[in-house]
Amino acid sequence: MGELTIWTYDWAPDGVRGFVRDLRLRWACEEADLAYAVRTIPFDGRETNHLARQPFGQVPFLNDGELELFESGAGLLHLARKSEKLMPTDPAGQAQTLQWTVAALNSIEMVTVPWWYLRICGDEDNQLTGWMGQRLNQLETILSQREWLAADRFTVADLLMADVLRVPEVRSFGGRPATEAYVARVTDRPSFRKARADQIGLFEKADEKRTE
Amino acid sequence: MGELTIWTYDWAPDGVRGFVRDLRLRWACEEADLAYAVRTIPFDGRETNHLARQPFGQVPFLNDGELELFESGAGLLHLARKSEKLMPTDPAGQAQTLQWTVAALNSIEMVTVPWWYLRICGDEDNQLTGWMGQRLNQLETILSQREWLAADRFTVADLLMADVLRVPEVRSFGGRPATEAYVARVTDRPSFRKARADQIGLFEKADEKRTE
Repeated sequence: MGELTIWTYDWAPDGVRGFVRDLRLRWACEEADLAYAVRTIPFDGRETNHLARQPFGQVPFLNDGELELFESGAGLLHLARKSEKLMPTDPAGQAQTLQWTVAALNSIEMVTVPWWYLRICGDEDNQLTGWMGQRLNQLETILSQREWLAADRFTVADLLMADVLRVPEVRSFGGRPATEAYVARVTDRPSFRKARADQIGLFEKADEKRTE
Repeated sequence: MGELTIWTYDWAPDGVRGFVRDLRLRWACEEADLAYAVRTIPFDGRETNHLARQPFGQVPFLNDGELELFESGAGLLHLARKSEKLMPTDPAGQAQTLQWTVAALNSIEMVTVPWWYLRICGDEDNQLTGWMGQRLNQLETILSQREWLAADRFTVADLLMADVLRVPEVRSFGGRPATEAYVARVTDRPSFRKARADQIGLFEKADEKRTE
């Protein structure tokens, strides 16, 4: 097995601390007791300084020995195959974990992120709001019927879905008690709390260097 | 190995024929020479008539023997593990295929679909246009340097990325010759043409029943 290295920025502004997506990979490694290192690229110049490793200029990307992967969703599915703590090993459990991981990426986040982006652009009551409400209502129905998305247990699909839903703007969309309880439950896991604290700690430490 | 069944609607209006996402799974099965059946659910009442099998009221979903999967992206990654024609079997080739499949879902389609949705809503020059252009430019850089996204060969990642990019509105965003050549090249594959013709044929046949 190769050595795992998670790459993120060397600094990030206050508003995004605790939400940069290296957190997803840290969290998965913590859940699965996988040893990992964290390395950084400069935040300044991030749009062009690492295009050879991440063609959209984003973080995270992951090294696993000789392997390189970008896209946090791909990194999660890659890590999930290393540990039953992230994904069951039976075919039905794997299929469910895969489908809900992709649902988080392509049915929920595909609406929540653009909706949130339009709000940041100043379009508070934007035209994605109806679609957003529909998708979150459909998810609320699911989450009111079960504790976990796949295979009756915590999987990497819950890690990702909770990470998509815990964005404050999305969470404050509101009125969905099962979804809120789910997000609270998943983000109360010690592995999430450690991953979040570690990310925030890294960026806070970088503040000191910046002001030196 | 289980029997593969791809589920789609029993009819769809002219404007979306050739673009309903069961095509992705048909195409993958054709590429991999996997036998499959196509079954349908009623288009009328589609928002609520199959929520037990697809909680967002969409198609396709896939049966593989006893397994059930929704999300076309998940179906593609599931099928890819059945055939080297869709994904290499070496770890580096698998990692690259996985990352580019997720990139199609979460870095490209996450922008193209909401952008297109806003246009349909009448907002032609919408606020996602800048983001869309940035992502498509980044992809153009990649596609001007290589023929295929992953592992120097056609994979399921190309199938999905080309399917995301071939939407007429996205394609007409224009001015990106490497991307245009890529979409033309991938969609010229016999397996794509068969899958597309079969989907359109199914819906055309349903026209006859509707008017009887």
